[in-house]
Amino acid sequence: MSDGFRDYFVKNKEKILDDYLTLLKFPSISAKPEHKDDCKKCVLWLQNFLQGIGFETELWETKGNPILFATNLKASKKKPTLLIYNHYDVQPIDPLKEWVSPPFTPVTRNGEIYARGAADNKGQLFYVLQSLKAFHELGEELPINLKLCIEGEEEVGSPSLSKILEEKKKELKADYLAIVDVGIPDPETPAVTLGVRGLVTFDLELTGTNTDLHSGSHGGIVYNPIHALLEMLASLRDKNGCVTIPGFYDDVAPIDEVSKKYINFAFDETKYKQQFEAEATGGEKEFSPIERAWIRPTLEINGITGGYSGEGFKTVIPAKASAKISCRLVPNQSPEGIAKLVSHHLSKIVPPGIVAKVKIHPGGGKAARVSPTSKLTKAFAKAYADVFGKECQYIFEGGSIPIVTELAEKSESEAILVGLGLIDDQIHAPNEHFGTQRLERGFHIMVNTFFNLSTI
Amino acid sequence: MSDGFRDYFVKNKEKILDDYLTLLKFPSISAKPEHKDDCKKCVLWLQNFLQGIGFETELWETKGNPILFATNLKASKKKPTLLIYNHYDVQPIDPLKEWVSPPFTPVTRNGEIYARGAADNKGQLFYVLQSLKAFHELGEELPINLKLCIEGEEEVGSPSLSKILEEKKKELKADYLAIVDVGIPDPETPAVTLGVRGLVTFDLELTGTNTDLHSGSHGGIVYNPIHALLEMLASLRDKNGCVTIPGFYDDVAPIDEVSKKYINFAFDETKYKQQFEAEATGGEKEFSPIERAWIRPTLEINGITGGYSGEGFKTVIPAKASAKISCRLVPNQSPEGIAKLVSHHLSKIVPPGIVAKVKIHPGGGKAARVSPTSKLTKAFAKAYADVFGKECQYIFEGGSIPIVTELAEKSESEAILVGLGLIDDQIHAPNEHFGTQRLERGFHIMVNTFFNLSTI
Repeated sequence: MSDGFRDYFVKNKEKILDDYLTLLKFPSISAKPEHKDDCKKCVLWLQNFLQGIGFETELWETKGNPILFATNLKASKKKPTLLIYNHYDVQPIDPLKEWVSPPFTPVTRNGEIYARGAADNKGQLFYVLQSLKAFHELGEELPINLKLCIEGEEEVGSPSLSKILEEKKKELKADYLAIVDVGIPDPETPAVTLGVRGLVTFDLELTGTNTDLHSGSHGGIVYNPIHALLEMLASLRDKNGCVTIPGFYDDVAPIDEVSKKYINFAFDETKYKQQFEAEATGGEKEFSPIERAWIRPTLEINGITGGYSGEGFKTVIPAKASAKISCRLVPNQSPEGIAKLVSHHLSKIVPPGIVAKVKIHPGGGKAARVSPTSKLTKAFAKAYADVFGKECQYIFEGGSIPIVTELAEKSESEAILVGLGLIDDQIHAPNEHFGTQRLERGFHIMVNTFFNLSTI
Repeated sequence: MSDGFRDYFVKNKEKILDDYLTLLKFPSISAKPEHKDDCKKCVLWLQNFLQGIGFETELWETKGNPILFATNLKASKKKPTLLIYNHYDVQPIDPLKEWVSPPFTPVTRNGEIYARGAADNKGQLFYVLQSLKAFHELGEELPINLKLCIEGEEEVGSPSLSKILEEKKKELKADYLAIVDVGIPDPETPAVTLGVRGLVTFDLELTGTNTDLHSGSHGGIVYNPIHALLEMLASLRDKNGCVTIPGFYDDVAPIDEVSKKYINFAFDETKYKQQFEAEATGGEKEFSPIERAWIRPTLEINGITGGYSGEGFKTVIPAKASAKISCRLVPNQSPEGIAKLVSHHLSKIVPPGIVAKVKIHPGGGKAARVSPTSKLTKAFAKAYADVFGKECQYIFEGGSIPIVTELAEKSESEAILVGLGLIDDQIHAPNEHFGTQRLERGFHIMVNTFFNLSTI
């Protein structure tokens, strides 16, 4: 950390916090059409912020919320171009009554700021912006060329950005891509994320009859669609937790030897149990818990419904039963290929008398990976290590950010995932929060990374 | 049919319908505490009706709705005593907006009266009452001794009647018991029901973690409770549709040879398919559809729930998943025995990392049977045959009326199930209805049965 930037943050802390809170007050909920105008106001505020610190900006208007694209390409052409991705939209706020303070009235408690979006993604977006502002206000040249892509529909699957990518290939072209939207294992452990799993999701609906039937009069006659659902879905995994769909693992590329050496697969079973009161008994038995979450594909049932589930009892054979199914993918599985495999297999195992409908949801994506020895990884890892004063760890993320792979492909860049999120930030839940210490660390990580990328 | 009773019905039709409609106007919904007073008003009206036609009456007050007990024991002591069971409470009315006319404002359309309770059970109760009134008004002695037990909590599982039975054993003692609460296969087929299946019901709740988890970050680590539910429940039935729980079939008594000869096990697959768009592919493969519904036990899943089931997708691993399970029982399975077997088996097959909770619901019951050659069966069968002008059929009911067996045991009587319900009467559904022709036929069946029982 250079003294100049350290002093800058300390001296301007009040104004920095003030701007951060202003950003948090916009109820930019992308899932709710009634907040479209709030999203617009939010992105205009961001545009104004960036214009004020010497960035060229464009608003890419879409059917949904505008995408803010901003550039500062004043560094030498020999210097690399880094594309940074963030989003300004936030999750809905239900259940509202569980919020201790209102979601769009940020409140600080014990050094944490509570508000919807405090962490995901406005907190992470804001330390990026603030690091750029520091260069401007300190009169320092940016050591690399920068492009920012700040979208407003991440929480609803990035439909507009996904659609516009091909058209904006030239604008987005970069050497490196940083998705600033992930986290670290715990508050004192620096880490960069070298990959995410891919995703493809399905709805399965089974119909047995044209109306709910009484299980006394009809039980034993018709094939209860709940039974069909149970049998079909249970058959998709064997006793060792392996997916039984033929070909499911065919394209799985094992992790390369270099990454294997860098990646920290340690799993603290005791801590996990403490935190979630859960044991690590799921998934494929022949792999360790973290391998199962990071480098192995899964087939998970995310929802089942059928018949009566209220108080008391209703002896019904429902007309329909249904399930939501997701597959997390690893390199080199293709979402389209797995979608085809799974839906074909499901259609083959439907019991007689039952009609099945499989729907593949749009918005899936491939897994993404970056090498631990790439220049991009080294630049961020060194920044994290220097700011935390500790060796940086290398991890994967079991979740999926479908836009990562698309954005990397179209911008022809190598992608890394970074951020300072913590598992208990309550993102997507009531009482979301983010700490001021992390704002400061994020600020310095970004500053350091810009310098590292220009020299490493 | 005697001319006297035939003329009586024709001449008094208007007054009969009028009384029936009055009975239908009481919103005697036992499931809703706010209708307790309506239930009281309804039973007082019935008490008044019976007092007016020479019956001694008692109201058995309970924690719930009163039970109306009425007797007319003026026939010779040599004549048998018949106990008749009906109920005056009705099902709730939701969804109200699907009713063509208001549920407690009876309306006649095409010879059918539409109202909640029109069939279940006020229609069937009313033709019993009206047959007794005819004897009174025609000045005819009742040919047998009669006891009526008209309860007000059938639709909520008869908790008060069940509780009071032991105390009222002496009052209830009879030779025969007729449960007038079932139906016939179609409008022109006379039939008596020689038995019902028993019932025992369970809730199964599985817990994997203390909170919903993200299926990206945790998928593959924890045991998804939905997976556990699927696997456990799917394992309860084999490929031939047989229940795999050890001992489940041990106490099943095969149907006796005499009943086998009388009972009509015919099944019209084409008609069934037309009516329900369903095929008869459920249950144990080695039995026919009607055998499966009448003389074989089942284990049916009546509800499953877990995770997300709304629009779109949510990649969640829920903390909990649960199911509602029911077993239909046949002679000589005991509800307590099966409850123990099933819950013990479920607790044994819980996967590691999952916590299971099994709850056995109160209010189950044994299966009931009466012989096709008993005096009671013959009396009713002859009455049905004479009124319809056709041979009477002998059927079972796959459903359960748990109070049947209890009432038969405590009153030391043989029990039969009769009635004129039809499958499309919409009982428990919007637009319930019952026909005036069936009121008249029911009236004559009861009159004829009283005579038959005194002479057969």
